[in-house]
Amino acid sequence: MTLHPATEHFRYRSGALQCEGVDLDQLAQRYGTPLYVYSRAAVEQRFAALRHAFGPEASICFAVKSNGNLSMLRLLSELGAGFDLVSGGELRRLQAAGVPTAGAVFAGVAKADWEVREALAADILLFNLESEYEVDMLEALGAEAGRPVRLAVRLNVDVDAGTHDYIATGRKHDKFGLTLDRAAVVVERIAAAPHLELRGYHVHLGSLIRTPGPYLAALERVLEFMDGAAVRREGVRYYDCGGGFGTGYGDPGGLLDVAALGRAMLPLLAARGLTPIVEPGRYLIADAGALVGEVLGAKLSAGRRFALVDAAMNDLIRPALYGATHPIVPLREPPDGAARTPCDVVGPVCESADFLGRQLALPELARGDRLAVLAAGAYGFSMSSNYNSRRRPAEVLVHGAEARLIRRREDFADMWSQEIDR
Amino acid sequence: MTLHPATEHFRYRSGALQCEGVDLDQLAQRYGTPLYVYSRAAVEQRFAALRHAFGPEASICFAVKSNGNLSMLRLLSELGAGFDLVSGGELRRLQAAGVPTAGAVFAGVAKADWEVREALAADILLFNLESEYEVDMLEALGAEAGRPVRLAVRLNVDVDAGTHDYIATGRKHDKFGLTLDRAAVVVERIAAAPHLELRGYHVHLGSLIRTPGPYLAALERVLEFMDGAAVRREGVRYYDCGGGFGTGYGDPGGLLDVAALGRAMLPLLAARGLTPIVEPGRYLIADAGALVGEVLGAKLSAGRRFALVDAAMNDLIRPALYGATHPIVPLREPPDGAARTPCDVVGPVCESADFLGRQLALPELARGDRLAVLAAGAYGFSMSSNYNSRRRPAEVLVHGAEARLIRRREDFADMWSQEIDR
Repeated sequence: MTLHPATEHFRYRSGALQCEGVDLDQLAQRYGTPLYVYSRAAVEQRFAALRHAFGPEASICFAVKSNGNLSMLRLLSELGAGFDLVSGGELRRLQAAGVPTAGAVFAGVAKADWEVREALAADILLFNLESEYEVDMLEALGAEAGRPVRLAVRLNVDVDAGTHDYIATGRKHDKFGLTLDRAAVVVERIAAAPHLELRGYHVHLGSLIRTPGPYLAALERVLEFMDGAAVRREGVRYYDCGGGFGTGYGDPGGLLDVAALGRAMLPLLAARGLTPIVEPGRYLIADAGALVGEVLGAKLSAGRRFALVDAAMNDLIRPALYGATHPIVPLREPPDGAARTPCDVVGPVCESADFLGRQLALPELARGDRLAVLAAGAYGFSMSSNYNSRRRPAEVLVHGAEARLIRRREDFADMWSQEIDR
Repeated sequence: MTLHPATEHFRYRSGALQCEGVDLDQLAQRYGTPLYVYSRAAVEQRFAALRHAFGPEASICFAVKSNGNLSMLRLLSELGAGFDLVSGGELRRLQAAGVPTAGAVFAGVAKADWEVREALAADILLFNLESEYEVDMLEALGAEAGRPVRLAVRLNVDVDAGTHDYIATGRKHDKFGLTLDRAAVVVERIAAAPHLELRGYHVHLGSLIRTPGPYLAALERVLEFMDGAAVRREGVRYYDCGGGFGTGYGDPGGLLDVAALGRAMLPLLAARGLTPIVEPGRYLIADAGALVGEVLGAKLSAGRRFALVDAAMNDLIRPALYGATHPIVPLREPPDGAARTPCDVVGPVCESADFLGRQLALPELARGDRLAVLAAGAYGFSMSSNYNSRRRPAEVLVHGAEARLIRRREDFADMWSQEIDR
């Protein structure tokens, strides 16, 4: 049985939840819980969908912030991905993974000098220019390095993609990008700067966008902007439509039809000689991952049902931070007709923010049962913390019938290894 | 000039912001930014206030989750604190710091077997029993260890302390504690269990409580409960009123008058022969800490003013997660009459959740200027993450004119030291 269309690589077989060909309960016994498990096939399938949608020339730049595990970066690089970076630390990750950096774009909203220096030395494809002050800063750092700084100007086109306030980024009162009036000035300044080269435009509207409409509205405004003056087109080869492709978190209607977006966008770009760049993170990796936890206890309090599990907000903060809803299913398939009642799945952390799901229809659960929080592959481990002195989970990558540990669980001593206790 | 009553240990002297006798700008130059800086005197002062309020017999159990740095645990232990633990990892922290564990209370809402075993071996003062299933679990683990399990029953007295939904914990639909009808049954079961000893009651209402009222309402309900049957009083020596003492975050009216709470509570406890336990975290340490960051750039977007700094939501998630407001001040004192305009202080993380403050009245700020986010000593570093592959900050403890590094900044390689990259 497939749980829902977005997670076909996690299904019950003979009553046990499997990731590809591997039994999740066996992984939990071997590596302990909480445990992140990723399906390689799920990543491959989504990558193929993007390649098909945007064509062989497109740069598919994986958003490292969504899941920066070195093994994941290698897998994406093998598939043909470039990388969307937002920090010098992410560049260092690429280098530690030994993957090429030449196809990377650096999109930091507030770049430190050392980050720009290292990215210039790594000869990345493009820097996204987000603010006017960066013109002088990047020119100076380009001059210092004796090499040109290839730029995409990030335009704030004031398109509200209708998503959660925290993940909307393309409205004019957000911190990102340049409004069109300021961009017009900046483009002139770039043209006059000896070490700066305008190569493209970048737009990013936010996350979890379900339809092509906002992307097309944004592109239309960018093309109008380019039409406004020859200097806005000179040397321009790339159009980076950002990421934010909706995945639905179990709601099939929430999965963006990337093929439809490609069909609508590619002819417009081709007519201008522009190569597409896309920056998917969640789309590639969210549905490929699950967080497995074990039930420590069950309780009823004033009629409200709780399953207390050993996975917590420090492992997966999206429910608390964004109000995100993840499907949660038991590893052992409930019998046909099993009663399901509303249940809050909560962790051991001492605050009410510590929930993984609320009022989910779940069968009876007892101490020792295990659960999987689905669609947890993106912004799961990458946002994890040691809050409540909890060790961050282990991570496993599944490929067919094989499972490989790609991050061991932290030791207690890892948590204070930087502390200096005289 | 004192910035506000809650932060008297951070003040301008000769135009420079100091922590006790140390110039924050010099610390920033020496250790880099973002940087957490703590005032020892501020912790000492608050500890003395609690001791004065609750008397020499009271157990003042520092909530390790608020700031578990080993040096901080040692300082609190030297002052005479016990510890409020919520996980086995926190117990390991006490052991790594070399501080006594005999005065610790373990308050986990969902305890794993190994956590209970280790806490029994460490002979801690009390376990808080939160759910009915724990009766059998703790009895079995006590029998296995061949020693009594000393319990405080956590009562959910259904008092809404009127705080943020995420930090309210004492309402009947929260996951914590036992409603009184269930507690009545549980107390009977404890009395019949050979390895369980009822020693007290525990209540925790939430955080940032500004007045004694909710504490007294809770105590009243607990005393009524105790009056209901002799078995509810037998062997009972402690009343743990929890923590959540308001600190105000710069609002003087938000600081709980702990002396008034003590005056109201102590006679009621003395009449029953009960010793008070309090569990302050934020009250002891929030105002003692500041997060220092550097301005990477300033921008105006559609009339909205932003200061882009190198500290971010991964360093301090409270504004994004709880809507918390922290005072933010420049390290260099603005001249008298300097214009201040509304400004959003935001970090480099690529999402709109990444703000440290919004619409704060701030003077002009330019690249290279530094800021301090005040009242950041609690739930700051302890909730930090590596999101966006950002290294977690260094921490410094100031004592008079001395500053000591108590945690070095992470290296990049620290971030992937648990990863296995075949």
